[in-house]
Amino acid sequence: MAAGNPTACLLVIGNEVLSGRTQDANIKFLATGLAQIGIPLREVRVIPDVAETIIKTVNETRAMFDYVFTTGGIGPTHDDITSACVAAAFGVPWEPHPEAWTRMERSYKPGDFNAARQRMATMPRGATLIDNAMSVAPGFQIGNVYVMAGVPRVMQSMFEWLSPRLHGGPQIVQRAAHVIGLPEGVIAEGLGQIQARYPHIDIGSYPFYRSNGNGVAIVAKGTDLVAMDAVIADVTALIEGFGRVAVAGEPES
Amino acid sequence: MAAGNPTACLLVIGNEVLSGRTQDANIKFLATGLAQIGIPLREVRVIPDVAETIIKTVNETRAMFDYVFTTGGIGPTHDDITSACVAAAFGVPWEPHPEAWTRMERSYKPGDFNAARQRMATMPRGATLIDNAMSVAPGFQIGNVYVMAGVPRVMQSMFEWLSPRLHGGPQIVQRAAHVIGLPEGVIAEGLGQIQARYPHIDIGSYPFYRSNGNGVAIVAKGTDLVAMDAVIADVTALIEGFGRVAVAGEPES
Repeated sequence: MAAGNPTACLLVIGNEVLSGRTQDANIKFLATGLAQIGIPLREVRVIPDVAETIIKTVNETRAMFDYVFTTGGIGPTHDDITSACVAAAFGVPWEPHPEAWTRMERSYKPGDFNAARQRMATMPRGATLIDNAMSVAPGFQIGNVYVMAGVPRVMQSMFEWLSPRLHGGPQIVQRAAHVIGLPEGVIAEGLGQIQARYPHIDIGSYPFYRSNGNGVAIVAKGTDLVAMDAVIADVTALIEGFGRVAVAGEPES
Repeated sequence: MAAGNPTACLLVIGNEVLSGRTQDANIKFLATGLAQIGIPLREVRVIPDVAETIIKTVNETRAMFDYVFTTGGIGPTHDDITSACVAAAFGVPWEPHPEAWTRMERSYKPGDFNAARQRMATMPRGATLIDNAMSVAPGFQIGNVYVMAGVPRVMQSMFEWLSPRLHGGPQIVQRAAHVIGLPEGVIAEGLGQIQARYPHIDIGSYPFYRSNGNGVAIVAKGTDLVAMDAVIADVTALIEGFGRVAVAGEPES
């Protein structure tokens, strides 16, 4: 699928998702937003606020993917270590960023821009800022690594600013059909044959369980709209061959 | 934190989370359930249905963590390749599991246990079954890798069966306090000093934005209840030192 598209990895940094305290809300948002600009998300890693782990993971993934996005760990408290760890990963000093520093200092009352808040204006040397409409504290980019806030509404605002500035490929779109009352195991063989005919389209099969009936949704994903329409036509014929009705699109949730 | 506890990694396998189609519901459930039996979740990786990636990730993580749990990719369709990939990762044949095969064959009408469904009874040699109350298709364990379904209610049923059979450490618990109207940046310095005094307790600081007021929640996590109560007492004193009211527990959502 989308062999020509640049690839992305997301690092969700923070103990709160790993402890079960917080339901992640950033993966789905970024996965959807990145697909729209043709940068498929190929991996997510959720990692703790542990310096060694963050540094190792940043270096591993920035070599594997075209884009690495991080969320979390850029606030003022002791557990916010993402920014310093990204500097360490790139082997550059972690130092006041002049523009971020000026902006933040100006936004606080005299004396309120304390040491903790100054950490939010301290960045890897060479970083450029990622603006957002929600908070005066910016994210930043260094190399192919994009460091964003963990709070969903701040992260979303940063991605809104960032998204038109990224270089994506053809948009990745989805087409779907679903059927009620036909188990996955019945259409599996025919579906495998359809997948074999369209190797550049990702065909996924997802059983669902709803009050108005159980069934399966077939989702085709890719950049070749003509081939995807052909996949959905073949899936429809497969379902109808079992005497059932194929419905376009995903089942209503 | 919890240096003596065994560690866990979760692999969420499937294109549907990476494409943004599906909101993950398994991470939080497993993170919470594992903390209760003293097996802290230390990393999550969300990876696609790509054989090379699954095999590499299983081998990397089973060497790094005491337990590796996987969800997704054990159904009957062409995109369900987790089981075969785990066999490849362990370097063992992928073959019919006698007990799973017998159970599944018995549950279908004659002729309905087709090739696609037989794949769900095909497992790495040496695997032992993970039962569940929702479906006749079992998960399985091989070495320190536990392979479960991706559909949340089936995964949850498998974990319910599995959980009392795992060897955990002391339960990981949380204590919290929160304050409205005091920004993170004001308490950050004092909080860092508290963390320095209790290095074996994870202290997290999480800003929140609610209609009845913005504030910050401080969460202490660990196995040493006495130290955690001391942390919360110190946090309470810190907040009160700024003339604010510290409230026990997390803010209501």
